[in-house]
Amino acid sequence: MRISVIATADGANSDDIVNKSAVMFDILRASSTISTALANGCREVIPVEEVEDALAKAEKLEPGSYILGGERGSIKLPGFHHGNSPLEYSRETVKDKTVILTTTNGTKAIRRVAGDSNRVIIGSLLNAAAVAQTLAMEKKDVVLVCAGTRGKLSLEDTLAAGMVIKDLLKLGNNSNKGNAKALRTEPDKLLFSLEEEPINQGNPVLEDSAVAALRLAEFYQNNPLRALCDSLHGQKLAELGLERDLVYCAQVSIFDTVPLYINGKITVPRQ
Amino acid sequence: MRISVIATADGANSDDIVNKSAVMFDILRASSTISTALANGCREVIPVEEVEDALAKAEKLEPGSYILGGERGSIKLPGFHHGNSPLEYSRETVKDKTVILTTTNGTKAIRRVAGDSNRVIIGSLLNAAAVAQTLAMEKKDVVLVCAGTRGKLSLEDTLAAGMVIKDLLKLGNNSNKGNAKALRTEPDKLLFSLEEEPINQGNPVLEDSAVAALRLAEFYQNNPLRALCDSLHGQKLAELGLERDLVYCAQVSIFDTVPLYINGKITVPRQ
Repeated sequence: MRISVIATADGANSDDIVNKSAVMFDILRASSTISTALANGCREVIPVEEVEDALAKAEKLEPGSYILGGERGSIKLPGFHHGNSPLEYSRETVKDKTVILTTTNGTKAIRRVAGDSNRVIIGSLLNAAAVAQTLAMEKKDVVLVCAGTRGKLSLEDTLAAGMVIKDLLKLGNNSNKGNAKALRTEPDKLLFSLEEEPINQGNPVLEDSAVAALRLAEFYQNNPLRALCDSLHGQKLAELGLERDLVYCAQVSIFDTVPLYINGKITVPRQ
Repeated sequence: MRISVIATADGANSDDIVNKSAVMFDILRASSTISTALANGCREVIPVEEVEDALAKAEKLEPGSYILGGERGSIKLPGFHHGNSPLEYSRETVKDKTVILTTTNGTKAIRRVAGDSNRVIIGSLLNAAAVAQTLAMEKKDVVLVCAGTRGKLSLEDTLAAGMVIKDLLKLGNNSNKGNAKALRTEPDKLLFSLEEEPINQGNPVLEDSAVAALRLAEFYQNNPLRALCDSLHGQKLAELGLERDLVYCAQVSIFDTVPLYINGKITVPRQ
């Protein structure tokens, strides 16, 4: 198994994920909202790129059977039931309904990464351990795609990718040996010693992007909320009065829901 | 001042660095070698992209006045005086000479980032503190460009960028307050508290890419060699028997040399 992280959805294309397990993270807030809605019993989430597409989808559905949700510039769209705050997608609101969701960044990123035919897991801090478990079962190479913000790396998505890697390594019971040997068994001398073994080069292989995300997760593991507050997007949301969303989205592995995008819809496959 | 990190030279273009202080890192090994050669008294380093260009440059110089150095696939080029190990560029070897250097990745990255008219500082762990000091004096926005490896993020270059940011924040005596206020002074309640203040949003502003690099530096600060051993490129060099280069390049701020690329040549500007 080989694990890599792509820093922005712009940097990913569907070729990158063919025959691999792919996860998309946009934890502030699309992927946290999607995970929450599905954990709260919504039937399916339909991510759409444009506001008009959302309205067109809604028109085809029975009134009362769907929730129209989304934002632009972090603000709820006029005429929509809800914005993009996961806190709005409670069980009472979403149970057995279809959620049609359009966001500035995340819903576009899902469709872009997935292309026409690929499946993409939706990851967040909220379901990190469950996503890791799914990846471990799938036993394929793993590509963790961070949505990023306006084409740039976002701290919060990279953190979430790192948390999944941390959990995945734990599941694999990795001994962190492997390639270390090559560094330490020069014929007649120990050239240097490390306090800890380098990252395992046996299985899985972590590309440097994955090691960097893992280290970020290790740095923030005791206080993931701090990462969200360190990020420019988190700070913007806080300025808009959305601190509660940060607190909510910073929770790690609070549910087992692993949403899967396939053919235009996000659902939770039956185990 | 705004600080950003670009993960790969492919992701940078000369527009990104216009009117900014730009630093290029390819610490395994081009930028470490360049810093070392100049710290050891070489007159100038001429980075060239192709082997033929290197040979053509050399032909125009007095024999004995130059060193022809470089690698492809980490291996010294046939007919060249030296490879790309900084350990080969000792004072006895390079003093008062011109070094013509061509490497797989780093020398191309310098020219690509610089474009036709821009200046680029050459950064490494070896001169991290001195680079930070130069950036603090220049008082411009800062772009730290990591060369990366084959178009992907490299752990070691991101670490070096993070080390420079760490030193730069220290020089600015940042109190890490700033935007934290917006998060903590809701009219009637403290929504949550953090053990530590979020990254300063006053001056400098750290883009998320810069925060991620800073955290990486904080993670590895007591053992930067471990980062080089965690990186795939570091492990490849170790497999080739170049462990001593890793140990050398992992040293932090061992000299004050700040090489500057401008108009095709790298020199150390007089203070």
